[in-house]
Amino acid sequence: RINGDRLWDSLMEMAKIGPGLRGGNNRQTLTDEDGEGRRLFQGWCEKAGLSMGVDTMGNMFFMRPGTDPDALPVYVGSHLDTQPTGGKFDGVLGVLGGLELVRTLNDLNIRTKHPIVVVNWTNEEGTRFAPAMLASGVFAGVLDQDWAYQREDAKGKKFGDELERIGWKGDEKVGGRKMHALFELHIEQGPILEAEGKDIGVVTHGQGLWWLQITLTGKESHTGSTPMPMRKNAGLGMARITELVHEVAMAHQPSAVGAIGHVDVYPNSRNVIPGKVVFTVDIRSPNIATLNAMKAEIEAKAAGIAKELGLGIEIEEEGHFDPVAFDAGCVTAVRNAVERLGYSHRNIVSGAGHDACWINRVAPTAMVMCPCVDGLSHNEDEDIKKEWATAGADVLLHAVLETAEV
Amino acid sequence: RINGDRLWDSLMEMAKIGPGLRGGNNRQTLTDEDGEGRRLFQGWCEKAGLSMGVDTMGNMFFMRPGTDPDALPVYVGSHLDTQPTGGKFDGVLGVLGGLELVRTLNDLNIRTKHPIVVVNWTNEEGTRFAPAMLASGVFAGVLDQDWAYQREDAKGKKFGDELERIGWKGDEKVGGRKMHALFELHIEQGPILEAEGKDIGVVTHGQGLWWLQITLTGKESHTGSTPMPMRKNAGLGMARITELVHEVAMAHQPSAVGAIGHVDVYPNSRNVIPGKVVFTVDIRSPNIATLNAMKAEIEAKAAGIAKELGLGIEIEEEGHFDPVAFDAGCVTAVRNAVERLGYSHRNIVSGAGHDACWINRVAPTAMVMCPCVDGLSHNEDEDIKKEWATAGADVLLHAVLETAEV
Ligand SMILES: NC(=O)NCCC(=O)O
Ligand SMILES: NC(=O)NCCC(=O)O
Repeated sequence: RINGDRLWDSLMEMAKIGPGLRGGNNRQTLTDEDGEGRRLFQGWCEKAGLSMGVDTMGNMFFMRPGTDPDALPVYVGSHLDTQPTGGKFDGVLGVLGGLELVRTLNDLNIRTKHPIVVVNWTNEEGTRFAPAMLASGVFAGVLDQDWAYQREDAKGKKFGDELERIGWKGDEKVGGRKMHALFELHIEQGPILEAEGKDIGVVTHGQGLWWLQITLTGKESHTGSTPMPMRKNAGLGMARITELVHEVAMAHQPSAVGAIGHVDVYPNSRNVIPGKVVFTVDIRSPNIATLNAMKAEIEAKAAGIAKELGLGIEIEEEGHFDPVAFDAGCVTAVRNAVERLGYSHRNIVSGAGHDACWINRVAPTAMVMCPCVDGLSHNEDEDIKKEWATAGADVLLHAVLETAEV
Repeated sequence: RINGDRLWDSLMEMAKIGPGLRGGNNRQTLTDEDGEGRRLFQGWCEKAGLSMGVDTMGNMFFMRPGTDPDALPVYVGSHLDTQPTGGKFDGVLGVLGGLELVRTLNDLNIRTKHPIVVVNWTNEEGTRFAPAMLASGVFAGVLDQDWAYQREDAKGKKFGDELERIGWKGDEKVGGRKMHALFELHIEQGPILEAEGKDIGVVTHGQGLWWLQITLTGKESHTGSTPMPMRKNAGLGMARITELVHEVAMAHQPSAVGAIGHVDVYPNSRNVIPGKVVFTVDIRSPNIATLNAMKAEIEAKAAGIAKELGLGIEIEEEGHFDPVAFDAGCVTAVRNAVERLGYSHRNIVSGAGHDACWINRVAPTAMVMCPCVDGLSHNEDEDIKKEWATAGADVLLHAVLETAEV
């Protein structure tokens, strides 16, 4: 069993870095705060006797050697970056849960055949630099490193430059590591486990996603003196596409979700009809046919809305992953661990994207989920109970022990 | 007749201060650029022999003495501040048209019985600090100076502090001046005069306006893992109110307009359902009953939209003026001037708000309008022809001469 108090103390210690305005965190990727969080994590790992490797995407790997020099490592981890108004647990629990697992093995003097590596993936959130799960995507060979380096934040700063600036661009070639397996512990970020009173979600699948960045171009003009029929109101087009995305998602729910989260209006002045808007559609489904049908419907109808209003439209694919089925062996290892420990559980589909979804393409992978209060995440009020974190990390420990072999 | 080339040269000279990105201007109120524009204008006025007064709202008054020491001055002017992506003529034409009128009287050695005062009103646009026509509103006793000083820009800077910072807070008590009359020359900012091939609009009325700032409060949560029925999507509420405002304005057009120009979404992250949105409704009508009925309908239906989506709603009145009927005598002076000069003309209702609308409450007031290309304003592409500017300033000269008496 892991030490729940020690895990919780580490979570609270990490949360002091990049505090939010309302008790959560703002530790966005490649900011100074991200750098500081990384150093704290590095110190803890080195104190636990782990040796560090950092790759050219800034992914951090901390290794605990195994007893068999030929055995591939079992990886555990998640991400330390947060949303701009994020919680203390999204991602962090998976990284520090991995560290706690190693600390526990050290306490108990348990050696495993396979090495164990605790990993922190760079830029999981994708808020500052789209898309999400950028560095695990490059690791898995799905995204290109040079393209990733060129990704820009809202101020035009580049991912590659910011990675160097905070001093976490490593030497190791990205994606070179071979894995025996990977496990990621994460909070559910949804309401199902709490509502059903389950301790643990055994994650069998992950939803697929499309992020579409839509630019509508109208005509900036005076709100007071431009007659209604002469307008080309890009803001009105955005409003109609917002409603469209909602309706398309509602038509497929509970097997789909969709919303618009990021919006830029130009010139954004009270008495000027918006001449340009740029916004991002986020649609998801565990069913690939549904996901792609939603995308096609939104693209076609958005074009119709633009045409009716005399607006130019450009749709750019800004992020994408297909639905994922996790590795049967790893999922079984998680389920065995839950049952061995006597926790209540159910199978679950991850609503969010995770680094594990990309790694599943190059290594056997599975995830462990624990509930979060009111299903709330991407919100500073995100919360979990210490027992939930403890149960999740315990399951992680046992799934890893079964896979890494004592 | 005024000197059209000299007027045009001054317009082009002023446009060099605070250049925009696409050929227009960004000389927002109380910025360094505003200060620089004011100094250029001051230099020109002093060279024309005028003496300056500046009041505690930063309004600038340049006086040309009359022959009768007891006669109240005739005022002419408009504003030098611009939209963030504004044109070279909105406001500036009225100020520099007033200066050109004085230069012409100097050239021709014409003395008037009443003094003539050229005025630049502070913060007409209202983009940086809402509401629009702030300083003329304080001058007219409709708005309170202390309240005006507390108005904040998007960065939390206060109007009063910024006015001091740029060095244009004068000593003169605001609103102390008595006026014989005021005339404002302005571009139409709409398409009517150009479409009908008229040289001049004789402005008989101005539309009334309401600016409503609406705040919708939902629940920030994860776009991927929050089931559709559990959402409180503030962005969806904004979309529906955007459509509502459009529909209400369409139902009353051509006697009404309406749109949403300014939008802030929180936290504005691609994978977060907006937890809060703040946006401004701008609705206008020349008919006071229509204007207030539109406001009531929007308020009631917006509350219904919020309720249906489980959102909190707060509606704040951010700006307001009733429709205006300009002074019959001043309007006649404008019409007489147009006819004397032989320009084609029509009566027109101003779609935009103007400083003259507030001053009309405390002094006999009227406006002269000239066309603008494609009716475009609040856009860097705003454009007029030199002949149009010349005709407008000529009409201004003759209306002022009739009123100020030679
Ligand atoms: N887990 C998580 O919030 N990942 C960010 C990417 C996503 O939006 O799913
Ligand atoms: N003329 C002008 O654009 N004034 C700004 C206030 C308004 O929006 O009408």
